[in-house]
Amino acid sequence: MNNLAFFITFSLLASLSHAIVSDYCVGDLNLPMGPAGYACKNPNNVTVDDFIFTGFRVGGPTNNIFKNNANLAFANAYPGLNGLGISLGRLDFAVGGVIPLHTHRTSEVLILIKGRIIAGFIDINNMAYYKTLEVGDVMIFPEGLLHFQVNIGKKPALAFVSLNSANPGFQVTSSALFAGNLPAELVEKTVLLDHAQVIKLRKLFGNI
Amino acid sequence: MNNLAFFITFSLLASLSHAIVSDYCVGDLNLPMGPAGYACKNPNNVTVDDFIFTGFRVGGPTNNIFKNNANLAFANAYPGLNGLGISLGRLDFAVGGVIPLHTHRTSEVLILIKGRIIAGFIDINNMAYYKTLEVGDVMIFPEGLLHFQVNIGKKPALAFVSLNSANPGFQVTSSALFAGNLPAELVEKTVLLDHAQVIKLRKLFGNI
Amino acid sequence: MNNLAFFITFSLLASLSHAIVSDYCVGDLNLPMGPAGYACKNPNNVTVDDFIFTGFRVGGPTNNIFKNNANLAFANAYPGLNGLGISLGRLDFAVGGVIPLHTHRTSEVLILIKGRIIAGFIDINNMAYYKTLEVGDVMIFPEGLLHFQVNIGKKPALAFVSLNSANPGFQVTSSALFAGNLPAELVEKTVLLDHAQVIKLRKLFGNI
Amino acid sequence: MNNLAFFITFSLLASLSHAIVSDYCVGDLNLPMGPAGYACKNPNNVTVDDFIFTGFRVGGPTNNIFKNNANLAFANAYPGLNGLGISLGRLDFAVGGVIPLHTHRTSEVLILIKGRIIAGFIDINNMAYYKTLEVGDVMIFPEGLLHFQVNIGKKPALAFVSLNSANPGFQVTSSALFAGNLPAELVEKTVLLDHAQVIKLRKLFGNI
Amino acid sequence: MNNLAFFITFSLLASLSHAIVSDYCVGDLNLPMGPAGYACKNPNNVTVDDFIFTGFRVGGPTNNIFKNNANLAFANAYPGLNGLGISLGRLDFAVGGVIPLHTHRTSEVLILIKGRIIAGFIDINNMAYYKTLEVGDVMIFPEGLLHFQVNIGKKPALAFVSLNSANPGFQVTSSALFAGNLPAELVEKTVLLDHAQVIKLRKLFGNI
Amino acid sequence: MNNLAFFITFSLLASLSHAIVSDYCVGDLNLPMGPAGYACKNPNNVTVDDFIFTGFRVGGPTNNIFKNNANLAFANAYPGLNGLGISLGRLDFAVGGVIPLHTHRTSEVLILIKGRIIAGFIDINNMAYYKTLEVGDVMIFPEGLLHFQVNIGKKPALAFVSLNSANPGFQVTSSALFAGNLPAELVEKTVLLDHAQVIKLRKLFGNI
Repeated sequence: MNNLAFFITFSLLASLSHAIVSDYCVGDLNLPMGPAGYACKNPNNVTVDDFIFTGFRVGGPTNNIFKNNANLAFANAYPGLNGLGISLGRLDFAVGGVIPLHTHRTSEVLILIKGRIIAGFIDINNMAYYKTLEVGDVMIFPEGLLHFQVNIGKKPALAFVSLNSANPGFQVTSSALFAGNLPAELVEKTVLLDHAQVIKLRKLFGNI
Repeated sequence: MNNLAFFITFSLLASLSHAIVSDYCVGDLNLPMGPAGYACKNPNNVTVDDFIFTGFRVGGPTNNIFKNNANLAFANAYPGLNGLGISLGRLDFAVGGVIPLHTHRTSEVLILIKGRIIAGFIDINNMAYYKTLEVGDVMIFPEGLLHFQVNIGKKPALAFVSLNSANPGFQVTSSALFAGNLPAELVEKTVLLDHAQVIKLRKLFGNI
Repeated sequence: MNNLAFFITFSLLASLSHAIVSDYCVGDLNLPMGPAGYACKNPNNVTVDDFIFTGFRVGGPTNNIFKNNANLAFANAYPGLNGLGISLGRLDFAVGGVIPLHTHRTSEVLILIKGRIIAGFIDINNMAYYKTLEVGDVMIFPEGLLHFQVNIGKKPALAFVSLNSANPGFQVTSSALFAGNLPAELVEKTVLLDHAQVIKLRKLFGNI
Repeated sequence: MNNLAFFITFSLLASLSHAIVSDYCVGDLNLPMGPAGYACKNPNNVTVDDFIFTGFRVGGPTNNIFKNNANLAFANAYPGLNGLGISLGRLDFAVGGVIPLHTHRTSEVLILIKGRIIAGFIDINNMAYYKTLEVGDVMIFPEGLLHFQVNIGKKPALAFVSLNSANPGFQVTSSALFAGNLPAELVEKTVLLDHAQVIKLRKLFGNI
Repeated sequence: MNNLAFFITFSLLASLSHAIVSDYCVGDLNLPMGPAGYACKNPNNVTVDDFIFTGFRVGGPTNNIFKNNANLAFANAYPGLNGLGISLGRLDFAVGGVIPLHTHRTSEVLILIKGRIIAGFIDINNMAYYKTLEVGDVMIFPEGLLHFQVNIGKKPALAFVSLNSANPGFQVTSSALFAGNLPAELVEKTVLLDHAQVIKLRKLFGNI
Repeated sequence: MNNLAFFITFSLLASLSHAIVSDYCVGDLNLPMGPAGYACKNPNNVTVDDFIFTGFRVGGPTNNIFKNNANLAFANAYPGLNGLGISLGRLDFAVGGVIPLHTHRTSEVLILIKGRIIAGFIDINNMAYYKTLEVGDVMIFPEGLLHFQVNIGKKPALAFVSLNSANPGFQVTSSALFAGNLPAELVEKTVLLDHAQVIKLRKLFGNI
């Protein structure tokens, strides 16, 4: 009987389910976003599958220019992360594969599952910190700094990364410079590259 | 048609409020939430009553299993708190009443108004910090740690608490274990409780 | 035996107690501060008393200009709060007592324990939101906005407040203007007060 | 060919443009706000002009009571700032012009472009820190503290300020006291001003 | 004399590092901590090895009560994480192994590398979300909620987790209840367990 | 007399000046840093000059490779900013001067004071947003994204920028690639530049 009263109190609250402030905010990609992320899916429709991401079971194709596959489980691909401040990625490297130089808005940790890679970052004093990692090794790439990974082994490599934002961004330096609409002249002036080099790389990226 | 109603609501709101960046964001419980809380009520409709909560004037019934009444003024009950990072609770204890072991996502301070209670928390090294509080005493329960309060006096006790989130959560350990849908077997394996104990408590919580 | 191994792992960690990242950071007022608050007291010397504040058991004297006593349990007075993002105050009002117009860096909630007060705040559009509170009523004062409380009852009043910072600041408008070293001329120019008014109030505050 | 695969991966992602978590969140003033700011404008409609604000090219009229013009580029005026945690203002001072005593929720830096001003703030111990600034000088006004600027030169002055919030608020002390609906009696009690002074200033602000 | 030693330590450090605002703050475990983490190691002494953690290359012994090994790379074990808001753990499960019910202050993501486990969490409405994960599956455990993992396969299992704090805490429910100094009577009152059950588990944990 | 009591209360507090939680935390560059910034200078030694920065009165030399002078008032150069979450820079451009492509950890706003520049940034979809700015125009560069400025006028240009961190970092892409210790081979692999280009630029940066 006592516990009955206990449950009545809870039930009343629960019946107003639109009014419950939730422990999580599974992203609803069909509503307008705000600065803190996606609007929350109706909690009544949330199931355990919203919290599980199965897209990392197998690697993706690595037949691209960098011989890699970067599968990013950020909030747009894995809406269960929305608002929770963390995300992940699966990095597959073919032999000779590279995760090209890039930045995120937040810090990243990497753990090497298979293979042998060189991983590194560059700090604001232009000091590069890089080293060969063995299976099981972890490396941290501090917030916002340029970093990269290169498979130096004789077999494919596999790593998982985690970043402390549901939407950390992923800006690949060479794609930013050569694969988009930034005029060649501005690349040349602001990075000091030669015109021929810029044109060659734009072509490589299929960008004329 | 439903969609239409949805957008009409949006448009109406928008036409009134669009240029004002507010100092507050009284929660509108009828709009989709985001990771940072409820959407803001139209500032034109905000009155002083949105900022005042009168639900603590009297205590609630304590005829439940814990002989307590925990009245939580979180953002769903007190939308004026929305986005402001703080909330409160009124704790009424009958003689022998207990606020059972629980956690929140944020820190909590308690001030004892009437009676005599033991309050305490347990840190990550399993060290319990607990002590008898007198009227007027304050105790802090650091972010995320298990804590509890027990009325050890001969009269009812009353305390107010404040937490530094508009939505700090409130997870009662025994309710989580026995009052919901977690299978008994998983409780037994992950907390090491005996099967008979788990069944006894599930019954106590009216959960078969 | 199995559990023995379990404890050995934990013990090793614990023996390096200076290296443990704690759940709390009781302030050590004898070490240099940082932007996030006081340095942490050695965890080995922390006791339950660090988490309890007994300074609110009785009110302080109210024989001052505002007929009040504002006892602030911020991190400097209650170092157990340090780093935990919350603090409190006890407000005693004599008959006619006033908590003068002031601001904090963070939001504040107030709960009225005894008496009858008018409480209010002013938003950026110069709109004042104020109302008479009864015992048990709660009011929120949003972050950074001017606010005040006035005892309008025939008896002393008592309220507790909580703020979502361990160091929210407390800037009383009239003290800032008249009790410190800001030259009268600058007060007059930047607040548009008359010279005679400024001089009268500086005298009232014992400031010439 | 390799790069073709690379682009197909990207294109697929891009085609679901409503699902992209953006690097920015240009405010859409026609949608409901949340505690973290405005909802985001559809990224497909964002152009470079959303990131540029041209409202500071010329100063505004200074023929008001304070002989100033404070042009605030907060998120409501400059929606490209929404969610990015920073904003700006252009301050024009006629000869003798003043930015009256005021507060924000966040810190402010000022840089003097033309003229000669006294700038200052008051801390919680009522200590005023003020000094004459020359062209090119920078001053910081810490979060939440009362501050002001006064043109003491013989010519108009110009300064730009920046604040670390897209919506830092701007509460002018004398406007809050005299230009709004706070009853004169409450001003007198909570700031200790004389009745005549309050009435005089309410008249000055056109508030009867 | 002790004081002298204290200041000599400080001075030495200061003379080397004073003008550099770093991109990282490798923790110096010999200096006092603050609320935001460890003080920073002198940047001049930082090497690439500070950013790499090799403690996950092999699993630890699982011959304990839970048949697990939870190797936590939090800031005290991996000082390179200090101040960067992220950390990791390696979870080894023997056959039948369990990561017991526990909480952290922040969110956690898990990726299953080997084996087959049930993972789950319980929300504030006592709803448990749990499911069997296959190799490569990811699950998110939202901030502060009780969660667990159980090896249900016929072989050992291996998972890595990441949490969005350098010091997320790790509070195991049964250890908090039975392995520390919380009196049995308080456990019984605040969790509703039987006395015999509590005594049995305290014995199991070697706690008399 | 009443006010006397008022002041005694305040004085007692003030006499313990090492225990005051301050409104600001002027950086003491001689003490160890923490993750949140420098330790605070003793408040007793703080003067108004700590809050003022005079290093922007004149521009610096622009006879370098980029024909610019970027004078950064971050916390190491302007310790009064420490802990306050904002900083500034003065950008001088000779004719043809460029602020090369770079990133920060936080957002930046720029205001053009003299001249005519093209300013732009590149988002994660490789879309560049750039435009010519006139005197008085403001542009925002969202957190973490590559951006640049180029003087396209016939005279020197001058701009001020502000960033929402006291230590936002400043990573120039070409310096990171060519001016430090990152091996040429890694630049070539991770950015796809030709060997000859890398060597040419390393020479240009005086890096053999």
